[in-house]
Amino acid sequence: MYTYGFGVDIGGTTIKIGLFNLQGHLLRKTEILTRIENEGDRILADVADTINTIIDEESINRDSIQGIGVGVPGPVDKDGNVIGCVNLGWKTRNVRRELSEKTGFNVCVENDANVAGLGEMWQGAARGHKNAVVITLGTGIGGAVIVNGAIAEGAHGASGECGHIHVSDDERESCGCGNRGCLEQYVSANGIVLLAKRKMQGDHKETALNAYSDLSSKHIYDEAKNGDGFANEIIEEAHRLLGKHIATICCVLDPEIIIIGGGLSRAGDILLVGIQYQFKKYAFKACIDTPIRLAKLGNDAGIYGGAKLLFDKV
Amino acid sequence: MYTYGFGVDIGGTTIKIGLFNLQGHLLRKTEILTRIENEGDRILADVADTINTIIDEESINRDSIQGIGVGVPGPVDKDGNVIGCVNLGWKTRNVRRELSEKTGFNVCVENDANVAGLGEMWQGAARGHKNAVVITLGTGIGGAVIVNGAIAEGAHGASGECGHIHVSDDERESCGCGNRGCLEQYVSANGIVLLAKRKMQGDHKETALNAYSDLSSKHIYDEAKNGDGFANEIIEEAHRLLGKHIATICCVLDPEIIIIGGGLSRAGDILLVGIQYQFKKYAFKACIDTPIRLAKLGNDAGIYGGAKLLFDKV
Repeated sequence: MYTYGFGVDIGGTTIKIGLFNLQGHLLRKTEILTRIENEGDRILADVADTINTIIDEESINRDSIQGIGVGVPGPVDKDGNVIGCVNLGWKTRNVRRELSEKTGFNVCVENDANVAGLGEMWQGAARGHKNAVVITLGTGIGGAVIVNGAIAEGAHGASGECGHIHVSDDERESCGCGNRGCLEQYVSANGIVLLAKRKMQGDHKETALNAYSDLSSKHIYDEAKNGDGFANEIIEEAHRLLGKHIATICCVLDPEIIIIGGGLSRAGDILLVGIQYQFKKYAFKACIDTPIRLAKLGNDAGIYGGAKLLFDKV
Repeated sequence: MYTYGFGVDIGGTTIKIGLFNLQGHLLRKTEILTRIENEGDRILADVADTINTIIDEESINRDSIQGIGVGVPGPVDKDGNVIGCVNLGWKTRNVRRELSEKTGFNVCVENDANVAGLGEMWQGAARGHKNAVVITLGTGIGGAVIVNGAIAEGAHGASGECGHIHVSDDERESCGCGNRGCLEQYVSANGIVLLAKRKMQGDHKETALNAYSDLSSKHIYDEAKNGDGFANEIIEEAHRLLGKHIATICCVLDPEIIIIGGGLSRAGDILLVGIQYQFKKYAFKACIDTPIRLAKLGNDAGIYGGAKLLFDKV
């Protein structure tokens, strides 16, 4: 019978490592820098060293540790191979085997957006639900689909790729994925800035946004809260696109709850209320009361989800 | 240990009843008329009578029969209550309990589109797959979502309601669901006729379709196959809408396979190839090779799925 497990969230800038008990309490959290030089060759060794240090410092019996659950920013196949993880400098790498060899523990590994979704379901905003869709509005848009309490990974690890839903036939610029007119070209942190910049260039709007040389999504939401009309037009367009496509997601999957996370979700109520209002305009009647909530765990969703991934794999 | 089970598909016009063995062979099929008079009061008694007759005629030991799996054209809750089934004249009715009392067998009941999807997964076009989306292009558009081998019913029984994905902001007429601009307003058997009629009224096209006073989707596909340019424009528009939104479904769920069934699917290759072509234009790269196939079981999908529903509930 185990008592503890580690949740690890490997990001392009930092790696977060959490020590959890089986009841879902985060007992200790450590953050280290991600060393992506030399094709990210040190990353897993750094994770292993940090975990060993935590075990020593906490004087935990290694036999009481169930293992390590890891989220990585790239696609993961069923054998634990991470295939092309540009943010980490990785080509193909078997995280499950390598980290297991370095630590002696069982290792589970999954895509980070899926893992963060699992975390929100376990101890966050979707707690108590077994069917949820988590949409992460960051630099791009990620997402996780939870069906019957488990991540629905999809046939090509592409489940929850809501950011690449085609929403405009008129787009001329390419999305990072190679297509044109993807949702994340308009509604991610980057997308909403682009949306604003295009409209500002077009007809030289009078708006407080003109004062920002390094315009960010936070500036746009802040000025919208300050009552700037143009900033409010921009966020309304973004919320309309999101609300409409959350309605689409509900027609396909009819989840119990929709969770909005990621950096953009820090805008708070103005974002949530805006999305909810637009959603109800487009929603199929049976789903019109489907709750849409903000994520709760913030940057810790990944380590919570990593631990849950591990605890579920008994 | 059971040997047999019944799959029952209750439709607004006829009821199909199939006797299956556990290996999935359809041993006998019976079809009776649906008596919807008096709020459909006779329907379940007719099903029970027919099943008893089959058991007698086939000289089957009742102990070797696992039970009855039923598909009904309406939403079903977790307790087996069918809530408002207009095509059958039913208000709320507990099919599981009523049919079980009338026959002495275990009864499972589910929405018919979901059950048909399960049938296609078990013995039809999605055989061997555990994650599939089945889109039924009939008078309207129905659908079923299969995740990890089981129907994903959704929080409000609305999973797979792909027909009510919002696809047009410009629609003035209401869909049956009360919204405006739903996919099924353009791509179902009724929708494609409406699409054609609108365009014909608009600018008096020269087309063989002018000759039909009772224009149907079959006429449109037949004339498209005969080379009628206008009919081909119409079906191309329908296939574009469908292909685009199948790409959306793949961004959300990334199923192993997409199955197209229902009356419209009898158009065959011209429909399938058209959808596949449009799908690839909009698909997220990881899903671009997701197979799209025609359903195989036709009108028998419901009885196969009913039996599978039963056999899975052991």
